[in-house]
Amino acid sequence: MTNPVLVEVTRGPRVESRHRGAIAIVDAGGRTLLALGAVDAPVFPRSAVKIFQALPLVESGAADAAGLTEAELALACSSHNGEAVHVDGARAILAKAGATEAALECGPQWPALGPDQDILRRTGTPPCAVHNNCSGKHAGFVCTVAHMGHSVEGYVKEDHPLQVLIHDILTEITGASLEADVCGIDGCSIPTWAVPVENLAAAFAKVASGSGVSQERGAALTRLRKACCAHPVEVAGTDRFCTDVMARFSDAAYVKTGAEGVYCAAIPASGLGVAIKIDDGGTRGSEAVMAAVLQALVARTDDDRGFLDRWANQSVETRRGYVAGTIRASKDLTDALAAL
Amino acid sequence: MTNPVLVEVTRGPRVESRHRGAIAIVDAGGRTLLALGAVDAPVFPRSAVKIFQALPLVESGAADAAGLTEAELALACSSHNGEAVHVDGARAILAKAGATEAALECGPQWPALGPDQDILRRTGTPPCAVHNNCSGKHAGFVCTVAHMGHSVEGYVKEDHPLQVLIHDILTEITGASLEADVCGIDGCSIPTWAVPVENLAAAFAKVASGSGVSQERGAALTRLRKACCAHPVEVAGTDRFCTDVMARFSDAAYVKTGAEGVYCAAIPASGLGVAIKIDDGGTRGSEAVMAAVLQALVARTDDDRGFLDRWANQSVETRRGYVAGTIRASKDLTDALAAL
Repeated sequence: MTNPVLVEVTRGPRVESRHRGAIAIVDAGGRTLLALGAVDAPVFPRSAVKIFQALPLVESGAADAAGLTEAELALACSSHNGEAVHVDGARAILAKAGATEAALECGPQWPALGPDQDILRRTGTPPCAVHNNCSGKHAGFVCTVAHMGHSVEGYVKEDHPLQVLIHDILTEITGASLEADVCGIDGCSIPTWAVPVENLAAAFAKVASGSGVSQERGAALTRLRKACCAHPVEVAGTDRFCTDVMARFSDAAYVKTGAEGVYCAAIPASGLGVAIKIDDGGTRGSEAVMAAVLQALVARTDDDRGFLDRWANQSVETRRGYVAGTIRASKDLTDALAAL
Repeated sequence: MTNPVLVEVTRGPRVESRHRGAIAIVDAGGRTLLALGAVDAPVFPRSAVKIFQALPLVESGAADAAGLTEAELALACSSHNGEAVHVDGARAILAKAGATEAALECGPQWPALGPDQDILRRTGTPPCAVHNNCSGKHAGFVCTVAHMGHSVEGYVKEDHPLQVLIHDILTEITGASLEADVCGIDGCSIPTWAVPVENLAAAFAKVASGSGVSQERGAALTRLRKACCAHPVEVAGTDRFCTDVMARFSDAAYVKTGAEGVYCAAIPASGLGVAIKIDDGGTRGSEAVMAAVLQALVARTDDDRGFLDRWANQSVETRRGYVAGTIRASKDLTDALAAL
């Protein structure tokens, strides 16, 4: 099956580029309200499922035992820019866990933004694991395994008790079969299991509603979701779609990006889960689709819709600021959303 | 028509992302040797056609009158990183034309690389037009119009004599009808006309052979092509595919990238022209396709093929350097290239 075009990039009178992909919207009862493309084909969710990967941190009691703040819980679910707030926060989680950044197994990464890179370059300091966009999640992992009494070393490996536990959580919440044929290694060294887009959306309906799982798990998901929505800067950072959306809509829309064109969302008011995968991995595509979805599902005012047009109808500008084109949702997508 | 997948991005046992597109390879006699996808659909070539846009600089006599060096001719055909060599070179062209960077109408742009950005940030200097990746081309434009006696102001506009001349050159060389229905504005403010991929490839066969155009134009194209191949750093810069390929293969392969997933090449030994457009605009896709093409058309040794594998079979690594997947040419593409 060839996935439909979900996003068009125009220049003057023509479409210059196209992003194909699949999208599903599922309600808390597990009913699929919208499906475009091969929503039954497994896709790697990458960082979009960090909220599920952080469940052991809450459910084991590690977060409370270490006295993690709500902002630190948000950081444990983040894909961040490596700004000072993120680096300092990851170090704080590690300190509360009685560990240091030497325990992190995510590998080094340059901060996303130029000024943060400058600080390192100016002092001749190489980036390290704490700057990795996943360092908050990994600090949460270290906190979890230290509390549970597992070895910290090797916590990223597929057969480590923490990753086995996360595998079992993802299997339960997504309802997908997560075996070796869908297992890859993520950029931060932990396993990532490919999940059909429709199952991912169903999992995020559980994040939205807190239902469809045990009462304890529902409470943990709700706690993590509310932490992220209350601390959007911790979840991503400056000039990031996740942060900007949650800063505006607060707990009305939990959104989380994943590498290679994945975006997921949970809409508490309607109990809906959303999952998007852009075939080519392009983030501009997944952001445009998610913005169009939020216009349909969350926006209440023209101001809300205008805010989301920054991504749903993003201008393509020349270096002098002339609007040469637009990144916009395709007719297939807008028609499907209008029919909701 | 849905274009075929030309590039696959794998992770573990699965294809994670896919790049669809169109590619044509045409010989100096105008025969199409390879065509995948909708090669008759117009695509914006963007910066891939800078060698044609630089023809008036040579053909008018402006380059020789100003005493431009071969390296400066290469810079006039470049999409550069805004490194010192590029910024200084653009200023030198302008000085030889009796102009300053105030004449540039391309708009400001940050340099591509962190250290060059740092230098501006550290001194609180905003980037300006001379840092724009097109500043070499625009300096060449200023040099051309000053020599030809046209007004410098407004040289980017569609109805300026220079842009009319470039339009007519592109029409002749591509054989395509370039009217308002295919006209957009490029990021540097000049018009860009969409051209079918097959016509683009035919145009680059003329660059490869110097034939199919007047003797004078063929000589000018050959002069510009040789200038680029002899000065690959001027054409792009540090860690850039265009530069690395021409630095290795010299005049055996002239290659030029364009924004939104375009790549073109001229292979002088065989008189072949190549044009690629990735549907989604992804540069990693167009580079992987071009690297596979060069393995088929230009590489002579295992060392050559291994060098090109940096892009034709590019490793997807974790932050700790583990190879988690590969960016590789699809079977459709490798089969088509093997049949050449």
